[in-house]
Amino acid sequence: MANESVRRLSDLLSGATGRRAFLSRAAVLGTTLPALGTALAACSDSDGAHVPARDSAVSAVHDAQQPPPHDRSNDDAAPVGAGAVGYQRYDPALPPRGAGGLVKIEMTVKEVPVHLTKDVVVPAWTFDGTVPGPIVHVRQGDTVEFTLTNDGTLPHSMDFHAAQINPKVAFRAALPKQSISYTFKPRYAGAYLYHCGTQPVLMHIGSGMYGAIIVDPPAPLPPAKEFVLVQSEFYVTKDAKGGWQFDYQRMLATLPDYVSFNGIANQYMDDPIRVKKGDRVRFYLVNAGPSHPCSFHVVGEQFDTVYLGAPPGNAIHGVQTFGVAPGGGMIFELVCDVAGEFPFVNHGFGHGQKGTIGFLVVE
Amino acid sequence: MANESVRRLSDLLSGATGRRAFLSRAAVLGTTLPALGTALAACSDSDGAHVPARDSAVSAVHDAQQPPPHDRSNDDAAPVGAGAVGYQRYDPALPPRGAGGLVKIEMTVKEVPVHLTKDVVVPAWTFDGTVPGPIVHVRQGDTVEFTLTNDGTLPHSMDFHAAQINPKVAFRAALPKQSISYTFKPRYAGAYLYHCGTQPVLMHIGSGMYGAIIVDPPAPLPPAKEFVLVQSEFYVTKDAKGGWQFDYQRMLATLPDYVSFNGIANQYMDDPIRVKKGDRVRFYLVNAGPSHPCSFHVVGEQFDTVYLGAPPGNAIHGVQTFGVAPGGGMIFELVCDVAGEFPFVNHGFGHGQKGTIGFLVVE
Amino acid sequence: MANESVRRLSDLLSGATGRRAFLSRAAVLGTTLPALGTALAACSDSDGAHVPARDSAVSAVHDAQQPPPHDRSNDDAAPVGAGAVGYQRYDPALPPRGAGGLVKIEMTVKEVPVHLTKDVVVPAWTFDGTVPGPIVHVRQGDTVEFTLTNDGTLPHSMDFHAAQINPKVAFRAALPKQSISYTFKPRYAGAYLYHCGTQPVLMHIGSGMYGAIIVDPPAPLPPAKEFVLVQSEFYVTKDAKGGWQFDYQRMLATLPDYVSFNGIANQYMDDPIRVKKGDRVRFYLVNAGPSHPCSFHVVGEQFDTVYLGAPPGNAIHGVQTFGVAPGGGMIFELVCDVAGEFPFVNHGFGHGQKGTIGFLVVE
Repeated sequence: MANESVRRLSDLLSGATGRRAFLSRAAVLGTTLPALGTALAACSDSDGAHVPARDSAVSAVHDAQQPPPHDRSNDDAAPVGAGAVGYQRYDPALPPRGAGGLVKIEMTVKEVPVHLTKDVVVPAWTFDGTVPGPIVHVRQGDTVEFTLTNDGTLPHSMDFHAAQINPKVAFRAALPKQSISYTFKPRYAGAYLYHCGTQPVLMHIGSGMYGAIIVDPPAPLPPAKEFVLVQSEFYVTKDAKGGWQFDYQRMLATLPDYVSFNGIANQYMDDPIRVKKGDRVRFYLVNAGPSHPCSFHVVGEQFDTVYLGAPPGNAIHGVQTFGVAPGGGMIFELVCDVAGEFPFVNHGFGHGQKGTIGFLVVE
Repeated sequence: MANESVRRLSDLLSGATGRRAFLSRAAVLGTTLPALGTALAACSDSDGAHVPARDSAVSAVHDAQQPPPHDRSNDDAAPVGAGAVGYQRYDPALPPRGAGGLVKIEMTVKEVPVHLTKDVVVPAWTFDGTVPGPIVHVRQGDTVEFTLTNDGTLPHSMDFHAAQINPKVAFRAALPKQSISYTFKPRYAGAYLYHCGTQPVLMHIGSGMYGAIIVDPPAPLPPAKEFVLVQSEFYVTKDAKGGWQFDYQRMLATLPDYVSFNGIANQYMDDPIRVKKGDRVRFYLVNAGPSHPCSFHVVGEQFDTVYLGAPPGNAIHGVQTFGVAPGGGMIFELVCDVAGEFPFVNHGFGHGQKGTIGFLVVE
Repeated sequence: MANESVRRLSDLLSGATGRRAFLSRAAVLGTTLPALGTALAACSDSDGAHVPARDSAVSAVHDAQQPPPHDRSNDDAAPVGAGAVGYQRYDPALPPRGAGGLVKIEMTVKEVPVHLTKDVVVPAWTFDGTVPGPIVHVRQGDTVEFTLTNDGTLPHSMDFHAAQINPKVAFRAALPKQSISYTFKPRYAGAYLYHCGTQPVLMHIGSGMYGAIIVDPPAPLPPAKEFVLVQSEFYVTKDAKGGWQFDYQRMLATLPDYVSFNGIANQYMDDPIRVKKGDRVRFYLVNAGPSHPCSFHVVGEQFDTVYLGAPPGNAIHGVQTFGVAPGGGMIFELVCDVAGEFPFVNHGFGHGQKGTIGFLVVE
């Protein structure tokens, strides 16, 4: 998916000096400091990027159906890379689980442009080239052997919320062109976030480095059509050449431009999730944040079960919505005994209206 | 309650061209598209209103006891319509339930000015002329026949969170001067939101179109004094003539001017909720949002029970506060065995201080 | 800890006129009105401080590792008082409980400068000179005799969330140089907030007047290493002399400059919390807010138990994070059967990155 004619996010870090400084610092972080180290501001400090953009910090709020409204004078300019990157719906279906026991998972850090909408493309840091990264599906007690290979130009790491492990070692950063590996056994079932844990974490999550790992309990949950939705916010600004880029200052300001399920605003409106009448539907709702909760709701439906903790326990019943904290995950189930078209939304509509609306079609 | 000398919110939509464009689009939405359709930005797109007001988006933050601070140069001008609209406390008492079985409910969309404080009046879209709309009280398993008649000038609809029903049909928009009807049977007890589901939903909720439907379980909950509090945020700006109006760009910016229980900032400070010593008090806390949670708390008291899902199950005990997600509802119970004056608040005080403080007087 | 050469927060309230007006109003509040009275805006109204600072309201967002970025032209000026105030880590260990039965607790309101980081010092209102105030540790059913003595220059009060009591009397304001006393018996176990309840509450919490009261259940919870973390946001601006001060307008804008555990940004990164392999660790997570939830998470670990209400009931199991509402508290437990360095964070990273990161070292 990488395209050399499209700029990478790393190239945008204020020129070679800034990048070099960041690289040298991050290398140190990756080898001698914990994943969440003492150099919180490693990346932007070196560039003086911490000076807040007073006027731009919170100004761009908009619906997700059109490009963000910054610098409308430049609107004639095509988004950089838009033509060069294919638009593809992120498949929300939970992929089948393997035989279990020993599960080997490999991912590669790729710096590629991605779609935030059909028209807005932005250079991103990714796991395997998509935002979110691939859905991982294992079972409680499996042994997961994980390897991350870094094909990017900056250090990156992997933090699985399903792992109980020393993060100083396991979640250390892989330098460019290097790999890291570790092994863990998920102790609890549930819908867990994974994300790059390299500092500043806000920037790495905010630049696309996250995904979901679904852990089944030993005894299977009731049969259901299963889908994974990862909510995340995106904060963008236009660079000097008129292209969109992620903006760390705007991430800190916490007023997002887009809030999406599975990376692309409203992608399931045009291309819905489809099930049959009578199906039980299980949504694994993971919230990558980085900052806001998700108030998940299906219009015209009610959840018969929401798992606040590890299933099959920790359930509440008869629920219209429940807030999923950033960094968290919950499982929302409903029985589709009515046919129709049911929007699923983040009912925090100031955010939902920025891209967190899709359709569940019950046929 | 409508007053022809007071401008309606619809009149403020950037003139006839914008309104006509919106009306024609929304009509299409109402008849051929789902309630939450593909034309997310139907209303404001047609007016170019999506260009963000960079300076105004987040600037007006203030306490709720005085008019919002925009354009103080105009403060001598009386708020438009303030003299023409009666101020009335919203009665928080849960109204008695009817005989049950078949319950017919009719509501009318009315575009009228409403009070956000004693002094601030704003043109609103309402159900039956008040914000929130009337409290609906039914029992699990009742058959609810609902009819919405639209006396407004734009399409509107009704989404009951207590209904399991095909929203594409039931929650479709009623065109001006027309009615829609549908029937549903609430499956779960609880405190549910209702709201207009016409796009953009953020604007319709943010302009006053919401309320509470309380569903009793088959076996009654313990006897109690029962009250309904619907939290909502309001986002306003001054128009060219010096009157207040709801501001969609500010709704998107998610930094509210007012956060109120039952539509009017701090109305239960001057005119408290009154109970007797020994009473069990049950608050049905519904959060219309559109964007922020409510951290409900009673100063000097603790909740012996909070229902996270449908009662009588799904309860936790011994709670100082719990966050109610936007679009959600929970039930908070306490036993008033101490006499006194107990403020009830949204303990998220950056929002609470904008109008979400009232008094519970135990005599 | 008070230092007469350092200005007090009260001195900064726009001169003598404003202070006098506030004092006279607040005195009335304290004696004839409930703690949360009708004069919401008492403090700043008198100074005209409610006019929003349009440009500054939301502009300063930054990492917590450097001073806030306002007025960088003044950066050469040393923060006022920085040299005069000792930096001291806030001890997060839950102090041992006394014999129980009758527990006498005395606190003194002190207006002193405090550290928000090693370099940023700000005049604060405090209980006993620290932010948060001292950790109170009692048992359900104990009789707590509490006395607050006000050594400050403005009225202040005390609201214990563990008390069921008439707040109009018990939580009334103590005038400067006076004391108030009251007695209560905690009915529920849990992690509770205490804070000054004098209006505007947002300003008093936001200026440092809060802490935690931990109530043990009658039968002890499983043995554990126990720690108390109180999250709070801080909103600051530079005054005319180049010193930092808390800023009520910024508190209302709800976009914080710092978000910290126990008052000082990232203090447990340099000086971690240390336990032994095999220990059960119990975090009493209290969220003072004033406005945002805390999504508590330990990197590389999972919580085996989170108490949503009073322990030992109300527990969920197998949890990566759960949102603690502002004004609330929850108990998070994990078993440290892996050695290593585990960052604990607010996983709402737009806020976490502003100071809510520490290390749990398992040796």
